[in-house]
Amino acid sequence: MQEILHNEKLPMEKVFRDPVHDYIYVQDRVILDLINTKEFQRLRRIHQLGTTSLVFHGAEHTRFSHSLGCYEVARRITESFERKYPSKEAGDGLWDDNERLVTLCAALLHDIGHGAYSHTFEHIFNTDHEKITTEIITDSSTEVNQVLSQVSPSFPYQVASVISHDYPNPQVVQLISSQIDADRMDYLLRDSYYTGTNYGTFDLTRILRVMRPYKDGIAFQISGIHAVEDFIVSRFQMYLQVYFHSVSRSMEVILTNLLRRANELYQSERSGESVNRGFQPHYLLPFFNDKFTLDDYLKLDDGVLNTYFAQWEDDSDPILSDLAHRFLNRKPFKSARYEEESKDLLPQLRDLVKEAGFDPTYYTATNNSYDLPYDAYDPTSKKPRTQIELMQADGSLVELSTVSALVQAISGKVSGDERFFFPKEMLVNSEESIFGPTYEQFQAHIKNNQLI
Amino acid sequence: MQEILHNEKLPMEKVFRDPVHDYIYVQDRVILDLINTKEFQRLRRIHQLGTTSLVFHGAEHTRFSHSLGCYEVARRITESFERKYPSKEAGDGLWDDNERLVTLCAALLHDIGHGAYSHTFEHIFNTDHEKITTEIITDSSTEVNQVLSQVSPSFPYQVASVISHDYPNPQVVQLISSQIDADRMDYLLRDSYYTGTNYGTFDLTRILRVMRPYKDGIAFQISGIHAVEDFIVSRFQMYLQVYFHSVSRSMEVILTNLLRRANELYQSERSGESVNRGFQPHYLLPFFNDKFTLDDYLKLDDGVLNTYFAQWEDDSDPILSDLAHRFLNRKPFKSARYEEESKDLLPQLRDLVKEAGFDPTYYTATNNSYDLPYDAYDPTSKKPRTQIELMQADGSLVELSTVSALVQAISGKVSGDERFFFPKEMLVNSEESIFGPTYEQFQAHIKNNQLI
Amino acid sequence: MQEILHNEKLPMEKVFRDPVHDYIYVQDRVILDLINTKEFQRLRRIHQLGTTSLVFHGAEHTRFSHSLGCYEVARRITESFERKYPSKEAGDGLWDDNERLVTLCAALLHDIGHGAYSHTFEHIFNTDHEKITTEIITDSSTEVNQVLSQVSPSFPYQVASVISHDYPNPQVVQLISSQIDADRMDYLLRDSYYTGTNYGTFDLTRILRVMRPYKDGIAFQISGIHAVEDFIVSRFQMYLQVYFHSVSRSMEVILTNLLRRANELYQSERSGESVNRGFQPHYLLPFFNDKFTLDDYLKLDDGVLNTYFAQWEDDSDPILSDLAHRFLNRKPFKSARYEEESKDLLPQLRDLVKEAGFDPTYYTATNNSYDLPYDAYDPTSKKPRTQIELMQADGSLVELSTVSALVQAISGKVSGDERFFFPKEMLVNSEESIFGPTYEQFQAHIKNNQLI
Amino acid sequence: MQEILHNEKLPMEKVFRDPVHDYIYVQDRVILDLINTKEFQRLRRIHQLGTTSLVFHGAEHTRFSHSLGCYEVARRITESFERKYPSKEAGDGLWDDNERLVTLCAALLHDIGHGAYSHTFEHIFNTDHEKITTEIITDSSTEVNQVLSQVSPSFPYQVASVISHDYPNPQVVQLISSQIDADRMDYLLRDSYYTGTNYGTFDLTRILRVMRPYKDGIAFQISGIHAVEDFIVSRFQMYLQVYFHSVSRSMEVILTNLLRRANELYQSERSGESVNRGFQPHYLLPFFNDKFTLDDYLKLDDGVLNTYFAQWEDDSDPILSDLAHRFLNRKPFKSARYEEESKDLLPQLRDLVKEAGFDPTYYTATNNSYDLPYDAYDPTSKKPRTQIELMQADGSLVELSTVSALVQAISGKVSGDERFFFPKEMLVNSEESIFGPTYEQFQAHIKNNQLI
Repeated sequence: MQEILHNEKLPMEKVFRDPVHDYIYVQDRVILDLINTKEFQRLRRIHQLGTTSLVFHGAEHTRFSHSLGCYEVARRITESFERKYPSKEAGDGLWDDNERLVTLCAALLHDIGHGAYSHTFEHIFNTDHEKITTEIITDSSTEVNQVLSQVSPSFPYQVASVISHDYPNPQVVQLISSQIDADRMDYLLRDSYYTGTNYGTFDLTRILRVMRPYKDGIAFQISGIHAVEDFIVSRFQMYLQVYFHSVSRSMEVILTNLLRRANELYQSERSGESVNRGFQPHYLLPFFNDKFTLDDYLKLDDGVLNTYFAQWEDDSDPILSDLAHRFLNRKPFKSARYEEESKDLLPQLRDLVKEAGFDPTYYTATNNSYDLPYDAYDPTSKKPRTQIELMQADGSLVELSTVSALVQAISGKVSGDERFFFPKEMLVNSEESIFGPTYEQFQAHIKNNQLI
Repeated sequence: MQEILHNEKLPMEKVFRDPVHDYIYVQDRVILDLINTKEFQRLRRIHQLGTTSLVFHGAEHTRFSHSLGCYEVARRITESFERKYPSKEAGDGLWDDNERLVTLCAALLHDIGHGAYSHTFEHIFNTDHEKITTEIITDSSTEVNQVLSQVSPSFPYQVASVISHDYPNPQVVQLISSQIDADRMDYLLRDSYYTGTNYGTFDLTRILRVMRPYKDGIAFQISGIHAVEDFIVSRFQMYLQVYFHSVSRSMEVILTNLLRRANELYQSERSGESVNRGFQPHYLLPFFNDKFTLDDYLKLDDGVLNTYFAQWEDDSDPILSDLAHRFLNRKPFKSARYEEESKDLLPQLRDLVKEAGFDPTYYTATNNSYDLPYDAYDPTSKKPRTQIELMQADGSLVELSTVSALVQAISGKVSGDERFFFPKEMLVNSEESIFGPTYEQFQAHIKNNQLI
Repeated sequence: MQEILHNEKLPMEKVFRDPVHDYIYVQDRVILDLINTKEFQRLRRIHQLGTTSLVFHGAEHTRFSHSLGCYEVARRITESFERKYPSKEAGDGLWDDNERLVTLCAALLHDIGHGAYSHTFEHIFNTDHEKITTEIITDSSTEVNQVLSQVSPSFPYQVASVISHDYPNPQVVQLISSQIDADRMDYLLRDSYYTGTNYGTFDLTRILRVMRPYKDGIAFQISGIHAVEDFIVSRFQMYLQVYFHSVSRSMEVILTNLLRRANELYQSERSGESVNRGFQPHYLLPFFNDKFTLDDYLKLDDGVLNTYFAQWEDDSDPILSDLAHRFLNRKPFKSARYEEESKDLLPQLRDLVKEAGFDPTYYTATNNSYDLPYDAYDPTSKKPRTQIELMQADGSLVELSTVSALVQAISGKVSGDERFFFPKEMLVNSEESIFGPTYEQFQAHIKNNQLI
Repeated sequence: MQEILHNEKLPMEKVFRDPVHDYIYVQDRVILDLINTKEFQRLRRIHQLGTTSLVFHGAEHTRFSHSLGCYEVARRITESFERKYPSKEAGDGLWDDNERLVTLCAALLHDIGHGAYSHTFEHIFNTDHEKITTEIITDSSTEVNQVLSQVSPSFPYQVASVISHDYPNPQVVQLISSQIDADRMDYLLRDSYYTGTNYGTFDLTRILRVMRPYKDGIAFQISGIHAVEDFIVSRFQMYLQVYFHSVSRSMEVILTNLLRRANELYQSERSGESVNRGFQPHYLLPFFNDKFTLDDYLKLDDGVLNTYFAQWEDDSDPILSDLAHRFLNRKPFKSARYEEESKDLLPQLRDLVKEAGFDPTYYTATNNSYDLPYDAYDPTSKKPRTQIELMQADGSLVELSTVSALVQAISGKVSGDERFFFPKEMLVNSEESIFGPTYEQFQAHIKNNQLI
């Protein structure tokens, strides 16, 4: 039995001016109320692209903008589905407009659990933004939950299950999360717009036009194959050129080492092994203590962390202070690519870095871009993704890469690279320094930005 | 005697990807070094438009981007001047390329003294961003000063004097600061791009093309009159529609009252009149104490203030806590326009606000948009601005508004409005509240967003 | 009694890729059929801007594109009206969706009667594109009429009456023809796009959003006043900078004189006064004979006329041949502005042109841009236009120029100029020619592109 | 010995407003004079994309615009080369600014020999636009030649030799004609802009920035690899989606058959085999007679041909008349893809077309898109193209496809398709016609737009 949803329409449609989608249209009371919750407003204080804005200075947009944009794309899709493919009876594989609200809420909230410098932070403090997203939506203490609960008692759980891929209707799930979903469509266009690169642009209007529901999810009319191809290629290009940019990864490496150092210092302080630091980063303490609540998590944002970094610049620990300084004032490490065969060099290079006076634990790192969330189409992966299906004139489906040379080309290829990061100082003119011979040795191993 | 400038060119031109100007080109070592100073990097943490992004969510860009953009516009102008109007002898009214570097540095640094939520902050704490700009440039403790001093000992003072309008060459001064200067050209385009409105766009290429130096400053060939007109109209439209937006002003009102409340509480605490608050906003204390250094000033940014606001949300003072909550979670006051003749109503309305339980000192405000830095062309003003001069075919000059109907129209008109701000609660349904009669009385005075 | 319309929907919506509106959507069989008629396809061979592309080379678009664009704007408006303001009972001042089809057809066909170089051609040959539009729509010999008649026998007359302003519903009439209608909205954006100027851009999305039907026509919600203002200003700027461009008017002057010369020669030939010219411009003969049919009219297009001009380049009449050459190879006359007080100079200048060997009847002209179809808002004009009405929060209307300083400024001003056109040869260096003294005298009267 | 070039600079740089490049800058007298020749002005009457505008209605731009655009791209490249890579001594592999003028003239004139519906016309009448280009440049009867000769007597031959790839300096040749040259860069951007598709866009600014001369031609700094990749992918996408569009090819098929039919009829008339047709297409007769001069060729343009087609619509020959009608009023043939294995069906299908009353010689055709001028990178081709070379940090070169997965993918793949064209009538409902059984049989062989 279908539960009754209390879905109040706004007396007058409300719009938000948006540089990417022109306008974002809100017609439902619950959407407007969600936007006004403190958990959602908090996304204004969390940058969408973390350290990327330190390379592409225009990219200072936040998860707030992206979340609105993702919602808007989803809204346009459901509007188009309702107009063109309305379900007449259960199980006919068409679009059931009762799914509209849960879809829009899931689109709006899909990133609500993200925190400041998410990926890096999670790594150090064992948080999990996906779990937290679910918590924010289903925990009765949050404003988000209170708004959703007014629709129906089970509504928050439905929204959460869409985001966790457990919702029964695959159309709804794929709209929010698949190889070509509302999330990706917004972020490619938005990141492209804000970085000022044009690699991420594609024909959104056309894609929305050829998108259609079918029994097992979402498909695309084959007449739109080129628009879908272009989307995939655009995404590929954005990864290589923006998301995997070596300087942005370098700043992430510094951030990682900075948080790691802080964690160690404050934990040792707690255990009495160390001097009292004076300054206590109030909102971070629960994380150092590994005992944080949802409320603690929601207190953090980019500005809070940066404020603590500023305090640490004056800390007595030279490593903490120096790394904070490098991060705040954008002093990236240098880096060089390496291949499997030059991996053996790394210990030696770390030793040279140490000889030059830098603790390699905090002043070097390796990082490959493969483990970043890149998901160019790959049906053979261990965690196989939903395929992109094209619908032919006679209604039969065909998988994208079997008919697109371009997509096939991207699917099979390994992309990204593996890099070794080290202080810029290692590359200075060896004659000008007492570490001359050390520098010389080090530099002999780097050529054309590669280890040799 | 011309002082010798040490101006090293970069071995390879460096570029920054920019969504507004496509690329920003850096050819001089000193420019790159200035960008890398901590004072300049700090601008990444200060939004360009303050509370405006709470209305136009896309406008999350910072003073860092704008400063780079202003530099780039100035660079293009000097490049064009050097190519088309190179001075052959002193006093010929053409462009002396020795002025190039001081111009570029001034363009890059013109906003370096801005702080977090500048205009509001200055109002409460008696800081002055123009004075601080001069200080950052000329005080030997700053990295900016150290970079500039390498050009020549007097170079920092030259750069500062351009920004303070005291530099002898009016061409240089007007390039950086006049009715149509590098600063305005960048911010109109940039704010337009990031808000997603298109009112601020104009034909930059054409304006740069018709711009030219002359004896007393900068003029525009009359063939470009329409591009200049369009610039003025665009600027006018941006003020009315973006910069003077009533909700953004409402958030500024809340911010003002919040900082005012904090200032009073912490000052009384210091004088022993009050309880100890527990939380000490480290970086703000020097301002509460009215004894701050340049270094103190440079510690502040949007993130630091927001971090303190978050702490204050939990403060025991209900007004401080509530205003912090409203600001961080975007709960604007409502407002209504009023004219001279309805001004008498204000005391009465404030009394009603008080009756409803809100201290009117912190929960109401008046604010007119005229005192915002709007400077549409007005030759009759007390502080007359440099006119925009058009150069005719025979070399004679004519002032813009005498030949442009559009500009004349804007020049004479009063723009903006005067508004009364109050809590949204005053507009709730009077039947649902014990304050019913109070609300009713209040609401009787507001019609069509106006006091009556 | 409402006549029944046979309005078949297409089984699948069809789209046309459009650079201005992205896509143009066709949902009705009759619209698709109209586009496929020969009278409509013929618009592909008639440029939208006549001689303007000889100044703005990008502006080579045709009336075909504009007609599709005008249709699309109208379609979006009716879609929005139907969604937001559906009429519930006759006379409620809201939108009756039965008006949709007649509106769309009128929008698509509003320019169907335009011919090659319309304005100039009409002037010489006494044709009237508005009358011809009506004829094409209502004459049973045309494909257009046959398509429309399938909807209902009286449907063609309804469509024609919308275009001629006689249709009873003022909403429909104003949608197609008023100060801010589908026609103007498309051509401003389109001409702006193709010329590459950005003066004509405005916020179409927002205008469509604030547009609404009311009892006496179309109004705009006052919240959208700035978008409407911007539209008016954009239009004003396009007139001054594109449509009134002096070189484009100069080419029009040559075209006028060329057609006039041809008309006279062929008429005298017919009356036996003159030699037989050999070449007979087949499709023009009915116009020389002043006895043309609708079919004759529809045979003409830009290419046909240009083909005849090419033939005339080889004609034995030196004036016909020379003017054809100047037109085809873009050799504009020069021109100078004049004011009322310098008008007396004209006879003298014409005499000098004659002395220099040019027949002033064909080698000079005066032309003012006021009589071009410029219709900036002017309620005091002899032929008063429908006002632009803004709807306030309480439903009352207010006329635009009473609340907009910008629009008021434009309304009152005289724009455009009066010019005297003459051969470029009159400005050559007087020393290099036997006509030296004549040239010198002539040139003494021209300064800064003005008669003195 | 270097010949002295007479290269006069314009007293004031002249600009042309251009929607693609914003402005086109002319600094040399010879360039302005070339633009004003009748041979160049004639390009205003020849569409850039032939029948493509019958599918993408926005694409009505001409070879005039493209030629200006190609010139502008070349101008920017030479400006950048002169600024960044000026040759110091002969043979140093850098840029010799004496090559500037010949490069710009070649860029401007590279398409000057194109005629109306070039590719189709050449096929029927054995003309050759490349040979004609050379003739226009070197034949002393043309205005183009006269302008060029003023630079130096041999200058026209130098310009022609650049276009024919015989010029000694490979840098100049590759700038005008290679896998990534000024021509392609302009047409991709321009065709993209005018069709309204965004597939053809790429980062021109960045490509110009990384382009550099070297001893054997033009290379690209490897830092710009992604911009070069994006260019190649964009080009690939434009071919598949715009240039190879099946409806546009269908209209080309009709045009081919129309001209073929006319040629046969007029040739048989000439040989006395046939009735006199009455109407004589004056400017086409030399081509029917296979005896045309350069002057004859230059008389033709799109408008002239269309004028003759209009006359032929009334011809007594039913095939000529019908094909003319179909072409002018856009009645495309239908088409179906076929593979090698379904080729055997073609004779049978042609027989069915004949049975249905259409002469298959004029009412069917096969056409593959491979022989259209597509040149995605293919080093193994019989006519190997200049490779795209990337320059590494140490100055060594590497060929693009060896380092780019995307480009490699495109290089190896066969693109485009082979199609069979036939009258739309063959697909009508078989029950409604006396040809029912014929239609049925025919339709049995077409499924999902493919022959089976």
